[in-house]
Amino acid sequence: MSANTITVRALYPNRPGMLGAIASAIGAAGGDIGGIDIVHAAGESITRDFTIGVTDDSQAQAVVQALKKLKGIHVRNVSDPVLLAHHGGKIEMRSKIDISNRSDLSVVYTPGVARVCRAIADDPEAVWRLTIKQNTVAIVTDGTAVLGLGDIGPEAALPVMEGKAMLFKEFGNVDAWPICLATTDPDEIVRTVAALAPGFGGINLEDIAAPRCFEVESRLREMLDIPVFHDDQDGTAIVVLAALQNALKIVGKPIQDVKLVISGCGAAGVACARMLLAHGIGDIVAVDREGIVYEGRREHMNGIKQWLASNTNHRKAKGSLSGAMEGADVFLGVSAPNLITGADIQKMNRDPIVFALANPDPEISPEEAAPYVRVMATGRSDYPNQINNVLCFPGLFRGALDVQAREINAEMKAAAAQAIASTVRRNELSEEYIVPSVFNRGMARDVARAVAQAAQKTGVARRKRSARSYAAHAR
Amino acid sequence: MSANTITVRALYPNRPGMLGAIASAIGAAGGDIGGIDIVHAAGESITRDFTIGVTDDSQAQAVVQALKKLKGIHVRNVSDPVLLAHHGGKIEMRSKIDISNRSDLSVVYTPGVARVCRAIADDPEAVWRLTIKQNTVAIVTDGTAVLGLGDIGPEAALPVMEGKAMLFKEFGNVDAWPICLATTDPDEIVRTVAALAPGFGGINLEDIAAPRCFEVESRLREMLDIPVFHDDQDGTAIVVLAALQNALKIVGKPIQDVKLVISGCGAAGVACARMLLAHGIGDIVAVDREGIVYEGRREHMNGIKQWLASNTNHRKAKGSLSGAMEGADVFLGVSAPNLITGADIQKMNRDPIVFALANPDPEISPEEAAPYVRVMATGRSDYPNQINNVLCFPGLFRGALDVQAREINAEMKAAAAQAIASTVRRNELSEEYIVPSVFNRGMARDVARAVAQAAQKTGVARRKRSARSYAAHAR
Repeated sequence: MSANTITVRALYPNRPGMLGAIASAIGAAGGDIGGIDIVHAAGESITRDFTIGVTDDSQAQAVVQALKKLKGIHVRNVSDPVLLAHHGGKIEMRSKIDISNRSDLSVVYTPGVARVCRAIADDPEAVWRLTIKQNTVAIVTDGTAVLGLGDIGPEAALPVMEGKAMLFKEFGNVDAWPICLATTDPDEIVRTVAALAPGFGGINLEDIAAPRCFEVESRLREMLDIPVFHDDQDGTAIVVLAALQNALKIVGKPIQDVKLVISGCGAAGVACARMLLAHGIGDIVAVDREGIVYEGRREHMNGIKQWLASNTNHRKAKGSLSGAMEGADVFLGVSAPNLITGADIQKMNRDPIVFALANPDPEISPEEAAPYVRVMATGRSDYPNQINNVLCFPGLFRGALDVQAREINAEMKAAAAQAIASTVRRNELSEEYIVPSVFNRGMARDVARAVAQAAQKTGVARRKRSARSYAAHAR
Repeated sequence: MSANTITVRALYPNRPGMLGAIASAIGAAGGDIGGIDIVHAAGESITRDFTIGVTDDSQAQAVVQALKKLKGIHVRNVSDPVLLAHHGGKIEMRSKIDISNRSDLSVVYTPGVARVCRAIADDPEAVWRLTIKQNTVAIVTDGTAVLGLGDIGPEAALPVMEGKAMLFKEFGNVDAWPICLATTDPDEIVRTVAALAPGFGGINLEDIAAPRCFEVESRLREMLDIPVFHDDQDGTAIVVLAALQNALKIVGKPIQDVKLVISGCGAAGVACARMLLAHGIGDIVAVDREGIVYEGRREHMNGIKQWLASNTNHRKAKGSLSGAMEGADVFLGVSAPNLITGADIQKMNRDPIVFALANPDPEISPEEAAPYVRVMATGRSDYPNQINNVLCFPGLFRGALDVQAREINAEMKAAAAQAIASTVRRNELSEEYIVPSVFNRGMARDVARAVAQAAQKTGVARRKRSARSYAAHAR
């Protein structure tokens, strides 16, 4: 299965040369024919399915347009394997116990279940043992900052949340269920999540726009006795910290000497700034669409930028992104496509590190950056060093749930970053290998173990687990 | 697996006569030995596991106490298979698509999933096709009226909601997820459910106490464009109507001539009264703890009882439950144990029908009623004619989801009752067989088909389905 394949069903006159003309048209439009199947051949006409590899949506459209322009051909249908794969949704609820007779029914439902209810009513902590709470996370979104698509609403966000639930299960063996909210009001989001919390062992906030996400997260963390985590903020920050730690080993710079420019003052940018400051980074300058954020700037400010102004940019620099790049060791982009150039990288300190994480198109393409950069990372899977949140959240929640943690605190996040970074051993480390593959199955287990231990050390674990039993659930 | 089995692990001196004494003690306390296994035998002592069938919790305790009193025996452990079965919870989230490589990931998550999000953003109805919404129901409770246990809170209610989710899947192939609310305020419940509705194709309200449940249900029905159903009200009413229709066939009384006494003015009682009135029942008298509900009664009234006073009891009877039984054709108990006697049934009209549905102990035991009653039904699985909501809700929601119904209306409920009743064919019908077994697999399919057709007829179906494809999902 691939996201970049389409199947075009075409009817055309069955005469010599037609197939060649079609194949040429597909090739000329950039399509890569993977298969040709006859659907129906009768009399003078023939219907075939052409399975065609493409690089992206626009190329797919170009291929279809090219075929439609061919004389005599009738494009009957274009099927998209991505849409087909989504028919009916991607996840389901499954029972862990069979109900094949009355006796089974009496155990899992009335009358037997009443005993279990009473056990929990008598000892509230038993809910962690006798129900799904111990392994269940709500993936909560209001649909306002979905992928690169922005505010598309809760229904359109659901396929992403289903995908996220699949990743939780696949990499962390966590049971997550999507909760897509018909409100974007922070008070309502907080109220709703607090109301539904009893059945869940953790809350993963997802794709909620800044600055609302900060308020929602901090209020819920305050109110609830289960972990509340906004993946777009802290998930990104943890993986960035892990990647940066490894990149700095390559260039041999201590983190306290590092000058870093952040492009983007949204959820991810601010969370990265916070986490990097907590880890002793030397100097951060944050830049938004209006330029460098500094103490005293009056225009286009908000609470979060005010925080950035007070806590970063101690040199009180002003001006453009390009100017900020002067002498920087690291560029961290969590903003928009094509904001910097090769010339900007040339202004940086020796051995520039560039994390251009805008999705799907980075702040600078790896090709353009290549001549000037020492270590380059993006959010994309088709280049080396993919900074992907899936490196973090399955193992992080696995570890938190394993010890029934009351929260995910700074120590647990740091432990997760450290575990991710350590997955790439010193002798494996290279400019093109600073973060592990998302398919490194051992990593989630290592992250879970480190997070669970940090939870125990910091006193937020409800449950003690021996080092052996940590992450027994992780695959 | 059985709810009524315990396993007692006991250590005792290994000498002749001990095992006999133990077996006798178990038997004398009413226990039924199902198996004896040696766990450990060393030197002078032996440890054995005794698997013992019991009728209920109190008998289990009596057996354990009897063993503890035996001289020389040391009860090490009593394990309860019901609690064991609940360890870790009964349900899980499962992916319907494998993620085994980067290409799979690109289809179900970024970048492929963005195409699906855009498709839904462009055409909101596509959420029914491309996500889990089409098959997903939220089981929502505030934990205030759980089984016979009452207000035990949302955490202690979770095992019941998990069990309900299992039944939804097993009998209707519906994916349901429990939502246990940390609030009992009707405004908050309504707000929370409305907020989380976008990801669900239906809402099953469960075990919410009266009278709050009426307000919550009616407000949510008004607000949402998906079915909202309070199973404790309408689920019970549908199954009662089905059972009553069949019982009346046996005694040969037309429903319009029937005098019925309802004991209990909670959620189920009022819903039954409403549904039976809508189906033309001749005469209803409702009775609560204070006696008959009548127009003008001042004490212990509420909005719901006022409604009952205005819409039932046209003869304006007053007095006790026992008095109300005089000349009645049907007694319907949705109240509390042991409220009526054999003498009360003797006051009824010829061929008395008694539905004593209080759980787990009915308003009169089947044994006590037997000499006087023609047709008897209870909520229990250990007597004939079990009035069980599982006869209704899986098929009902299956049918509603199959046509993407906007609501579950009166016609759909009537169709469900009719389909349940018809499952017992005329020539099968008897005093001891008025409702089908919950394990009658064809029934949910029949209910689903009838409900879907009723939804189409009444214009609340989003989607047309041919008669053939109805309930294709039902097992």
